[in-house]
Amino acid sequence: MTNLLKNYLFEKKQWIDQNLPLYIEKIEAPDILKESMIYSLEAGGKRIRPILLFATINALGMDEKKGLDVACALEMIHTYSLIHDDLPSMDDDDLRRGKPTNHKVYGEAIAILAGDGLLTHSFEVIAESQELADEMKVKIISQLAKAAGPAGMVGGQVADLLGENKTLTVEELEYIHEHKTGKLLRFAVVAGAIIAGASPEQLRCLDLFAKHLGLAFQIKDDILDVEGNVEQIGKPVGSDEGKAKSTYPKLLSLEGAKKMCNEQLELAKYWLDQANVEKELLLEIADFIVKRDH
Amino acid sequence: MTNLLKNYLFEKKQWIDQNLPLYIEKIEAPDILKESMIYSLEAGGKRIRPILLFATINALGMDEKKGLDVACALEMIHTYSLIHDDLPSMDDDDLRRGKPTNHKVYGEAIAILAGDGLLTHSFEVIAESQELADEMKVKIISQLAKAAGPAGMVGGQVADLLGENKTLTVEELEYIHEHKTGKLLRFAVVAGAIIAGASPEQLRCLDLFAKHLGLAFQIKDDILDVEGNVEQIGKPVGSDEGKAKSTYPKLLSLEGAKKMCNEQLELAKYWLDQANVEKELLLEIADFIVKRDH
Repeated sequence: MTNLLKNYLFEKKQWIDQNLPLYIEKIEAPDILKESMIYSLEAGGKRIRPILLFATINALGMDEKKGLDVACALEMIHTYSLIHDDLPSMDDDDLRRGKPTNHKVYGEAIAILAGDGLLTHSFEVIAESQELADEMKVKIISQLAKAAGPAGMVGGQVADLLGENKTLTVEELEYIHEHKTGKLLRFAVVAGAIIAGASPEQLRCLDLFAKHLGLAFQIKDDILDVEGNVEQIGKPVGSDEGKAKSTYPKLLSLEGAKKMCNEQLELAKYWLDQANVEKELLLEIADFIVKRDH
Repeated sequence: MTNLLKNYLFEKKQWIDQNLPLYIEKIEAPDILKESMIYSLEAGGKRIRPILLFATINALGMDEKKGLDVACALEMIHTYSLIHDDLPSMDDDDLRRGKPTNHKVYGEAIAILAGDGLLTHSFEVIAESQELADEMKVKIISQLAKAAGPAGMVGGQVADLLGENKTLTVEELEYIHEHKTGKLLRFAVVAGAIIAGASPEQLRCLDLFAKHLGLAFQIKDDILDVEGNVEQIGKPVGSDEGKAKSTYPKLLSLEGAKKMCNEQLELAKYWLDQANVEKELLLEIADFIVKRDH
């Protein structure tokens, strides 16, 4: 990793980490609800979605500050999805990033409501942003709702549940990932592009860049689930295997999965090249995402 | 009930009933998810929130059609809240309006995701509405997120859960209802007023009208829970009592609750009078809401 990238990731992650809880602290709501929302927001993670959003704004030569509200709203939605996915009736996970999951700490009812609260509040954060014109807000809200809703992330989670204990085709697995995680990653880049005033053609190329990067990211996740260890990835290795979920290494072999991961990375780079932006930072982030070891 | 009101309620309920499923049918999403979302949307109810929204537009002399998308989005949010409230970890209800609750039919995981999907999609419906200018959409989305989120409905549900098996003060009970059900009823009227171009003073008076009407509505709900019967209210009579929840009749006696209900209705009428609008229809709706027997 270059020093440029290292500093960028560190700075922007810190920026998000510091700002996220502020949005929740100022809400007038029962303390336990706010505590539970902040607990999961602070559970950390790499903040890849906000960083992709910032880096896209940067690649189009604009100030990342314009995107802070949307980046935080996006991370709220990502966090809500993790809280709900971890619930006993869903993936039934006790640990997330090495810490007890939200419902393990606050109970199921509060965990569901913390998720509902984060999802709902994210739209308020965008609607109230001081940085964006109304026309931009409406576009971003529409894209975010599409990416996170039934045609996006929620639909992907349903497909994931329906696919348990079945051997899926690669196409079916792709459908799941393109929706469950892919749509929100694409939104990160598309939102950054909208905020920075990208042309329709730039928007199209950056969206395709994000689509292929998202798939590479997910295949890498599956590979790490086979090859990683519990300290690195924060959950038991092979935990997907235990639930008889289809993964790329299972369907394609470990070698095949690695090959597909690299192909997707190359496609991502091709579209980034076509987008006609200052591409260095996004290129480094793409490489980092796919070459990470946790 | 006058024929005017009877026809209005019938027509507008039918309009909502016919349109609501159309918004979901056209989404590209797994069938079971769409089925589950439509199941709860079609479970019916009185559609009081959309009707209040339409009647407010009407009272300001505008065409209700301008509010159809927002009315349907509002009913989606109301429906999501019922699905999540009924879950085993929340109120654990098997019946809703005389029909099995969503999780009883589709299982807990799909029920949670159907709720998440309805909530998310409602914001897309408003953002994509052909009837409203961007400035109006942003205002409405912000108000809706505030009314439904941690500072509104979600916060009220948390307070309700925390209040179980405790004897609350009337003030604490009021906090719960003002948030759990009141904020969304107020949003119905406020959104109608925004859509119809109300002045700031009209907006303020109509909001206060809705605030007091909402409280009267909720007290009436508690009274019906004591006095009604299962065919009329679609759930076992006294079901709130079973869970040791505080209710107005318990805290104030049945007579005291009826008195408070009437006082709130009078306050609602006072503010409606101040709003300087064509008030007949809203007045009749207010009377109807408080004098209903189910």
